[in-house]
Amino acid sequence: MTISSFHPTARTLMGPGPSDVNPRILEALSRPTIGHLDPEFVSMMEEVKSMLQYAFQTSNELTLPVSAPGSAGMETCFANLVEPGDKVIVCRNGVFGMRMTENVERCGGEAVTIDDAWGKPVDPDKLRDTLKQHPDAKIVAFVHAETSTGARSDAKTLVEIAHGAGCLTIVDAVTSLGGVELKVDDWNIDAIYSGTQKCLSCVPGLSPVSFSERAIEKIKGRSSKVQSWFLDLNLVMGYWGGGAKRAYHHTAPVNSLYALHEALVLLQEEGLENAWQRHQLNHLALRAGLEAFGMDFVVDEEWRLPQLNSVRIPAGHDDATVRQRLLNEFNLEIGAGLGDLAGKVWRIGLMGYASNRKNVITCLSALEAVGLKADGSAVAAAQAVYDK
Amino acid sequence: MTISSFHPTARTLMGPGPSDVNPRILEALSRPTIGHLDPEFVSMMEEVKSMLQYAFQTSNELTLPVSAPGSAGMETCFANLVEPGDKVIVCRNGVFGMRMTENVERCGGEAVTIDDAWGKPVDPDKLRDTLKQHPDAKIVAFVHAETSTGARSDAKTLVEIAHGAGCLTIVDAVTSLGGVELKVDDWNIDAIYSGTQKCLSCVPGLSPVSFSERAIEKIKGRSSKVQSWFLDLNLVMGYWGGGAKRAYHHTAPVNSLYALHEALVLLQEEGLENAWQRHQLNHLALRAGLEAFGMDFVVDEEWRLPQLNSVRIPAGHDDATVRQRLLNEFNLEIGAGLGDLAGKVWRIGLMGYASNRKNVITCLSALEAVGLKADGSAVAAAQAVYDK
Repeated sequence: MTISSFHPTARTLMGPGPSDVNPRILEALSRPTIGHLDPEFVSMMEEVKSMLQYAFQTSNELTLPVSAPGSAGMETCFANLVEPGDKVIVCRNGVFGMRMTENVERCGGEAVTIDDAWGKPVDPDKLRDTLKQHPDAKIVAFVHAETSTGARSDAKTLVEIAHGAGCLTIVDAVTSLGGVELKVDDWNIDAIYSGTQKCLSCVPGLSPVSFSERAIEKIKGRSSKVQSWFLDLNLVMGYWGGGAKRAYHHTAPVNSLYALHEALVLLQEEGLENAWQRHQLNHLALRAGLEAFGMDFVVDEEWRLPQLNSVRIPAGHDDATVRQRLLNEFNLEIGAGLGDLAGKVWRIGLMGYASNRKNVITCLSALEAVGLKADGSAVAAAQAVYDK
Repeated sequence: MTISSFHPTARTLMGPGPSDVNPRILEALSRPTIGHLDPEFVSMMEEVKSMLQYAFQTSNELTLPVSAPGSAGMETCFANLVEPGDKVIVCRNGVFGMRMTENVERCGGEAVTIDDAWGKPVDPDKLRDTLKQHPDAKIVAFVHAETSTGARSDAKTLVEIAHGAGCLTIVDAVTSLGGVELKVDDWNIDAIYSGTQKCLSCVPGLSPVSFSERAIEKIKGRSSKVQSWFLDLNLVMGYWGGGAKRAYHHTAPVNSLYALHEALVLLQEEGLENAWQRHQLNHLALRAGLEAFGMDFVVDEEWRLPQLNSVRIPAGHDDATVRQRLLNEFNLEIGAGLGDLAGKVWRIGLMGYASNRKNVITCLSALEAVGLKADGSAVAAAQAVYDK
């Protein structure tokens, strides 16, 4: 057995995430590891918390990155908030809503599901009706930005409806944080989780979460222990919330947190609203190019996520062949469809650092080169958006 | 709010972990992020699995790094193997045995605990007796290398006793993997978890695990779903065990896995037995120095872990003051005691890359400089061990 060091080919990541990581973040990642109780590290953790509050637009004290990927952030919300027997309304319009149902059931909760077609936003009227039929529901859960389809849902309205029925809310913001408007406090979201590898352009492996006072009350008032020791916020708070007197809970992923810190410094330098606008501008340019190729978007204009463009594959082009050529000839990764959309759509991400003019033009040119309509009209259409 | 980039002071990490990270690993960590389904990444995952099999000395097919720290590796073992109502014998001789009890209870199992004094190994006779009293026990769990005390237990014998009573075994090898003899197949261990930030000298954030066929049978034969979706091995196997046809489960922590890959390449270059011997040699040198200071070890010689040296703080020296001076004046981190040992012992780690002659001499010199017996005898004693 002789295995040598691994040197990945540099790619351009325009799939559903991970997205291209800013070189400043990769450099931060490789700074010397220090102890997870080192005073310097503890100060850095406080800065991460404060910058996450900015990113989430919240003053929630309990705002921190879970030491594991977005799926663990999801589980942190459900395992802490759902008690055995709790009825939870889960709005499903893609893969991640389905995963929420799994979470509710594994926590001993009763899931009541509302289904909308993949590519459509969650329907507020259906939620209103379902809450009338289930006045004993405790929690409403939905995905703000469905990574599997590129559909945004109206989080503010859905939270209002849930609160009107006395429910807490759990919101998946894995793909929305940093890419589109998201205002945890203004929208009164109770529990929210995200990922680092999407519009924050950081490496995968951490899941920022935030909990309102109302959510914390439910967690503190539980009659049973949280079923996960690792994700039990009562314990995690002792480390992240302990100020100078931190209690050891688990060994924090030190270097990944350096990277998240740098990603958040970058977000702060750009400004959150500017980041949202940048995602929108590059989306419009990409869209102009894709439409010049004759491609249709899966999601109606109003609900399209600028950072995840799901388009139908034009007739005469084979999904796997095109994606493989893009990867092999251009080191360009775009995403495949999931579930019923597999083989029928591409998911082209413009997330965080990857959301830039060069990537938009590169992607359109590469699509031309592998056989999409090759008359230069796509690139020209995109350029026109920038030059407007 | 203006927060700038974080630049940690470089430390020498001689606590209970994280340990010093080899610069080659930090460099690997910062290589360009690629997709978690990229063919190049998938090939790298296969190499990680195979090198982990070497590190664990096992041919277990189900050998992989969990995408979260050691505590999540622990939870992976318990959540998958313990079904509601299962009786689990937990041998406790430190912090991590106590954490195991929490895990059993949160999985709905019934924990029967055996206590040994902190600093002592787990007593095989007590296990034998307890199993006689509890013939319906399903699982025996213990810690191979207690990070809280520096005590090794006789894993081989404990597993034999457990198997004699028809029990499966869960073994904590967070601090032992790569530092002392550990042979999963020879010792017939059924489920084992470790961490990356100890004797593998990698960054914290991943937890290598391995499961025998017997363990997999129990997992596949469960009558209830694993309560954690994120840690459910039935699902994780679809990604890590899927060969070329991998099913997406969660987004792997891509860059951390580059780092683990490099750490395992380094282990392979050195050779596992050589790594064990290096840990032992540096331990003997450090021990000679510490004894020259008049310090006593907490653990009896036979059961001492070379990678974690717990010594009683000599009279007249204040725990916090000494550790703070070491950190501030020498950028040297050593560990404090936990639980009953807090304030009474120091835990001096010599783990992985940190287990080297320079660190041994640096640590002894620094201890002299902050007020331990300053006659040069400690350094001389350590040097004599190397020069033998």
